[in-house]
Formats: sequence, C-alpha cells, structure tokens
Amino acid sequence: MADFDFTPLLPPGSPPPAAKWTGSPRYNFTGGNNDPAQVPVEALRVAADAVLRREGASLAYYGVAHGPQGYRPLREFLAAKLKRDAGIGCTADDILLVSGSLQAFDLINGALLAPGDTVIVERDTYQGMLNRYARSGVNAVGVPVDRDGLQIDSLADTLAALRAKNIRPKYIYTIPTVQNPTGTIMPMDRRTKLLELARSYGVPVFEDDCYSDLIWSGERPPALYAMDTTGGVIHIGSFSKSIAPALRVGFIVAPWPILSRMIALKVDAGSGALEQMVLAEYCAPHFAAHVPALRRGLRKKLETLMAALDEQFGTAAEFDDPPGGIFLWVKLPDQVDTMRLYQSALAAGVAINPGPEWSTDATHARSRMRLCFASPTEDEIREGIAILADICRKDFGVPERSANIELRAERR
Amino acid sequence: MADFDFTPLLPPGSPPPAAKWTGSPRYNFTGGNNDPAQVPVEALRVAADAVLRREGASLAYYGVAHGPQGYRPLREFLAAKLKRDAGIGCTADDILLVSGSLQAFDLINGALLAPGDTVIVERDTYQGMLNRYARSGVNAVGVPVDRDGLQIDSLADTLAALRAKNIRPKYIYTIPTVQNPTGTIMPMDRRTKLLELARSYGVPVFEDDCYSDLIWSGERPPALYAMDTTGGVIHIGSFSKSIAPALRVGFIVAPWPILSRMIALKVDAGSGALEQMVLAEYCAPHFAAHVPALRRGLRKKLETLMAALDEQFGTAAEFDDPPGGIFLWVKLPDQVDTMRLYQSALAAGVAINPGPEWSTDATHARSRMRLCFASPTEDEIREGIAILADICRKDFGVPERSANIELRAERR
Repeated sequence: MADFDFTPLLPPGSPPPAAKWTGSPRYNFTGGNNDPAQVPVEALRVAADAVLRREGASLAYYGVAHGPQGYRPLREFLAAKLKRDAGIGCTADDILLVSGSLQAFDLINGALLAPGDTVIVERDTYQGMLNRYARSGVNAVGVPVDRDGLQIDSLADTLAALRAKNIRPKYIYTIPTVQNPTGTIMPMDRRTKLLELARSYGVPVFEDDCYSDLIWSGERPPALYAMDTTGGVIHIGSFSKSIAPALRVGFIVAPWPILSRMIALKVDAGSGALEQMVLAEYCAPHFAAHVPALRRGLRKKLETLMAALDEQFGTAAEFDDPPGGIFLWVKLPDQVDTMRLYQSALAAGVAINPGPEWSTDATHARSRMRLCFASPTEDEIREGIAILADICRKDFGVPERSANIELRAERR
Repeated sequence: MADFDFTPLLPPGSPPPAAKWTGSPRYNFTGGNNDPAQVPVEALRVAADAVLRREGASLAYYGVAHGPQGYRPLREFLAAKLKRDAGIGCTADDILLVSGSLQAFDLINGALLAPGDTVIVERDTYQGMLNRYARSGVNAVGVPVDRDGLQIDSLADTLAALRAKNIRPKYIYTIPTVQNPTGTIMPMDRRTKLLELARSYGVPVFEDDCYSDLIWSGERPPALYAMDTTGGVIHIGSFSKSIAPALRVGFIVAPWPILSRMIALKVDAGSGALEQMVLAEYCAPHFAAHVPALRRGLRKKLETLMAALDEQFGTAAEFDDPPGGIFLWVKLPDQVDTMRLYQSALAAGVAINPGPEWSTDATHARSRMRLCFASPTEDEIREGIAILADICRKDFGVPERSANIELRAERR
C-alpha cells in the first residue's frame, strides 16, 4: 500500500508522531505503576463474578444506565471514604467518575482554560499536567515548594505580581498531600493560608489528591476541599495508586456550578462501567484493609531504594524520606544533567524521570530526578540503581566511587 | 457553602452546563443501547475469572504493559476478525484500542482538524460527530444519501465545488455499512467510485464501521479500508454494538503515518485494560457464535417495531426495512416537526431522536426521526409507539386514526 501523505493536512502545532513501542525498560523507575504482587487478584475475581452475575445484563446500557456521573455504588463508596479519610462532606451527586485522573485534568482544563490563559502550579509538579499546558498554549507559573509543600509567601507574591499585570489566573493547581514529585504533605496552617489567598484573589483551587491513600502513618490533614467555604475548590482522586492503574478510574468532586460544565464536556458516552462496577464491589468490603497492607509493601520498597541510593551514590544523592507515595525526588550533584543521564540510562535499560520534565524551572530541576519504586522488585531496585550509578559516574564523574560509605547525616 | 462564581473564568464558546440527570425515559428509542437479555453474562463471568486469574497482577502496570496501542490479544483477535469479516489485511500493530468509538473520533479529529476546517459527511449522519464539528468550529458539508448510501455524483459535485473555492476537505466521513441513521449498505461499485474520487482529490476517507456486525444476512461488502490502495483510509469499529456499550472499547485501524499521530495525542495513560482483557478472553471463543444470535434477536425487535409503526401510524410513517443495525429512520408527514414531537413525547416518557439532530440539513430532516429498537422490550416497543402515535396525532393531526390499516405497498 502506498503512503498517503497526511502531512499537509495536519493542523498547526501537531505534536511529533509517536515512536513504535518497543517494550518496557528492564529497570523501570518511571510511571505510576504499582506493585504487581499487591494487586488483590483473588478478591477482584470474586468481585467481578458477583457484580457481573447480579448486574451484568445492565452492560447493555451506556453507563449501565446510572447517568453521566457513573456507577452509583462506586460514587457512594467514595462519598463515605472521602468523609472518613479527607473530611469531605459530599454526596454521590457531587462526584463525577472519569477515565483516570488524566480525564479529570482534561475536563477541568476544558471547562476553565483557553490558549493564552495563566495558571499557578507548584514549581516541581506532575509532568502530565505540564505537557497539557504546553500543548494547549496555557502559561503555567511555578511557585517554589519546600519541605512543607507550596511556599505561601511566594504564592502571595505571584498572585500580586499577576494582578499587577491584570492577569487573573484560572486556578492554582496543587498536590498538597504527598506532592508529586517532592513527596511533601502541606501542613494545616499553609492549607488555611492557601485558601485565604485563593479567596481574596478570586482564584479557584485545583486539588490533586491522587496519592493521599499512600501515607505510611495512615494519617492525613483534611483536604482543601473539606476546609473550603467558598465553593471554589475542585478535588480529584484516583484508584490507580490504591488499587491498580490499568483500571482507568478516577473521580472529580466539585461544586455543581462547575461540575455541570465538566459533565457537559464529557461527551464520551461514559467511562468504562465494568471497571467501576468491579471496583465498587471490591472496595466496599476490602479497601480499608487492602490499603494499609499495600502501604507496608511500598514502604519496604522505598527503604530498599533509599538504601541502594546510599550504597551506590553516597552523599552524591540527596533526598528526604517521604511520608508516603510511590516516588522519590532525588538531587544529584550540580554537574549532572538528568536529561542526558536519562538518555544514557535508558540505553542501558534503566528508565528514570529527568527533573526538567517535572518542573516549570528546568535550571532548578537540571540535576534532579524522580524515581518511582512501586513496580520494580527489590532486586531490580538494587540492580537498577547500581547500573544508574555506574552510568552517572562514567558520564559525569559522580558518584566518585562505586560503594560510597559517606552517608548523609540528616534525613527527614 | 457559598457559590464561587466560575462564570467569568469560563472560556469563550463554553457549552451550556449539563442538567442534573433524572433517570432514563420509560420508553427509550434513543442511544446505541443494546438488548440486556442478550449480554452474554455467563460467558463474560468465565472470561473475567480466567483472565484475572492468569493476568490480574499485570493490572499494576498502565495498560498492563502492552504499550499505548492496548491489550495485544484483543488486537490480535481484531486483526483476524477484520480479515475474515471485512477483508482487511492488518496486524495487531496497525490497531489502536480506544475508549469507545467516540475516543476514536476525538483522536482522528485531533490529528487532522483545526477550527475553520472543512469535512465532507453524509447529509444524515451520527449526531455525536455533528456535535463535535459544531463545538470545534469545523464546517461539515453534507452529501445526500439514498438507498445505496452516499450519492457519488453529489460527492463529486461537492469535491469539485470545494476545490473551486480552494478548499481541501480534511476527510470524507462515511458509514458505508449500515449507515447511521438510514441503515443502508453501500454497494461495491459506489465503494470503488468513492475511493477513486477520494484519491483523485487527495482527501482521506474516514470509515466508521461500528454497525457492520449486525447485518441480518451476515454478509457484507469489504471495508473501504480493505479496498484502498493509497494508504488514505482510516477505519474505526467498536464492541459496543456487538457485545455491550457500557464496555468502552473501540478501535482504530490506520496507516502508521497517521496512526502514530493519534497515539501521540492519546495522553490518557491507556484505555481501560480490564475491559479489553475480558473482551479478548470472551471474544476469541465466543464472538463468532454470539453475534448471529444477537442479530436474530435484534431482527425480531425490528419486526415488532415496524409492525407497531404500521399499526399505529399506517401510511403516515415511511421507512425502509433496513438490512441490519439497531435503528430505523422514519419519515413522518411534512407537517410533523420532530424537534417539537421530541419534546412532547419525552414529557410522556417516550424518547426519540429528532431528525434535525442527525442531519446537516435541518429542513430535509424536519419530519424524520431515528428510532432505536435494541434495548426496549417488545412490549415497550408496542406501548411506546402507541403513545408516540397518540402524541403525534394530538400535536400534528397525524396519523389520522388510531389503528390505521392502510399499509404501504412497497418496502425494501
């Protein structure tokens, strides 16, 4: 067959074509993958069997005839869970089930953003969101984060500076509870101040809460959505991190004036109902016991990763011990360009997330990387980090020797 | 909680907010819903159990680590099925699994269309596509259809007229095999001519093949994709009509130069893998036997619908007996405005698709309606059509009497 030339038909600004997929890297420290050993396969089988037996015939209807907001028992489970865990008072009617949190991004952005708009984000933040802004011509202004998350003084300065230029940001995008990639949890006083600033500037808050189930202590501050009194907070979450990412089930909790706008944009005839049904059937009896067990396993892998970094990189790898999550944000010595390290490492079968892809400030993030630890085995973690250290040493001269024993004095 | 005013933040051209969902209508002749009695629940349970037992742990990986094109065994099933049924020679690498054919629309449109662009469509066509053009500022030029589908002479005139205005349409969108809503199947000679015209004008063809499994005879012409020699045809299909619409699984078959563009735009971290896995496990042994049984059931419902229309509307309802599908395209007398009939009927619990929503020519479609027959029971079909006839009589004076016995002489 000839190759029809589609090139002249592509709209301006088309992204480059995808490369052919060639398989997963041998040592994969990227992506929000989870631990295959911790997928609750048996209980999911029981759940699938039960819900299909009871309600399988309803698959004949789009959205199993539960309306555009998705399978109602899952929304009811979420309303109870959000009340218990995050202090959010909402009902099933305030929740929109979506095809993973990425569809939540697209619906929220679709409802609020036009090219040329400005949003405020944490300087180091989720790559998938930064890519969306870049593609849609939205200006993302980064505010620095520290060990307590978003720096409120800098946020105040940023809001004031934008107002001085007559720019009203469309929202403040924040991951306050296990920030991605830095892993921090924003304390209560900052949450209060963030909401005060947002209210005084009339700017909505977009709270991404996808990692909060994975806090080692099991304790978390209330969600911004729970503390808000203005109706200006949009909250999203996901089952990708707590159950399994291949099930594309996320959710949005939002006040009806803006949720109704997102529903109007959700012209996909519903998200996958079988996955919602199986999750609802599984989660009601099992979620509360599953998640602590998952956390223990993830914590163990994190400790393996931190020990491997200590052993292989010594003081050349700086990081805090995060209070939860599936990723570690690592600072390497200044001479390391993680975009280059990423290329060399990938060629050797080790995939990392280079810092500049996870930041609005490529200079700040130049020597930083994100390492995800949930899916590789402990052996793969140890082997992969050893290979990474070898490559880093070869390319950048650090770490200086292969089993560095100078350990950092302080970690928090 | 106060109502934050999001209104000043909405981008220009935002659609109106969704209304709260209030449940399904009592007699629903809209939507691509299927027959709940024909969902193969038992076999789906067996499939879900088997595939979860064997591969459930892989749900820990986005897309169960099968890459961005989706679960490979389902793509392999499709490659074999498309060869057998539609004459398409392709491999799993030519197929992109998507979240229902609506995501296929969005990816194809995203890869090819910008606001202000022109596409050619069948005058009477799928509402979901027309809505997408309207929202994205794309100009859809309708070409009349007759009992053999798209009129080729009119297509030639349209292409010539656009060229005279220096407009190169981005594609020709056609549903050649069980056209929606008219139900026609385009014969071979028109397929050949359509492809010749498309080639000579350098215009891609977008072939929507979502209904071709549901032809009563089980026989269909080869797909346009199969007949094409230019690499300029994009083919889409779905499991919504053959298995169940609540499983959001559709697919795109396209030459790599344009498929790679769509994959680049598919930034959703994969479509729901569990649904793809269950479908693959189910379809390999059962699809070929399931579909003929489904067709027989649908044919029976269609006959009930046609008999109810004959009984209640007599000669006031004109329609052809379609060769397959799940919908009937009905012409009512000229004085009937189906947009108004739609409102009155809905208030009485009867949902229909008014013609103007399914056509580029609201005048042509003014007295037409689409009736979907797969999901209501035969009793609901009879009762719903009787209520519809009563409302039509009250509002428009037709049909003249309540059990009209003047039947149409000819039907094909």
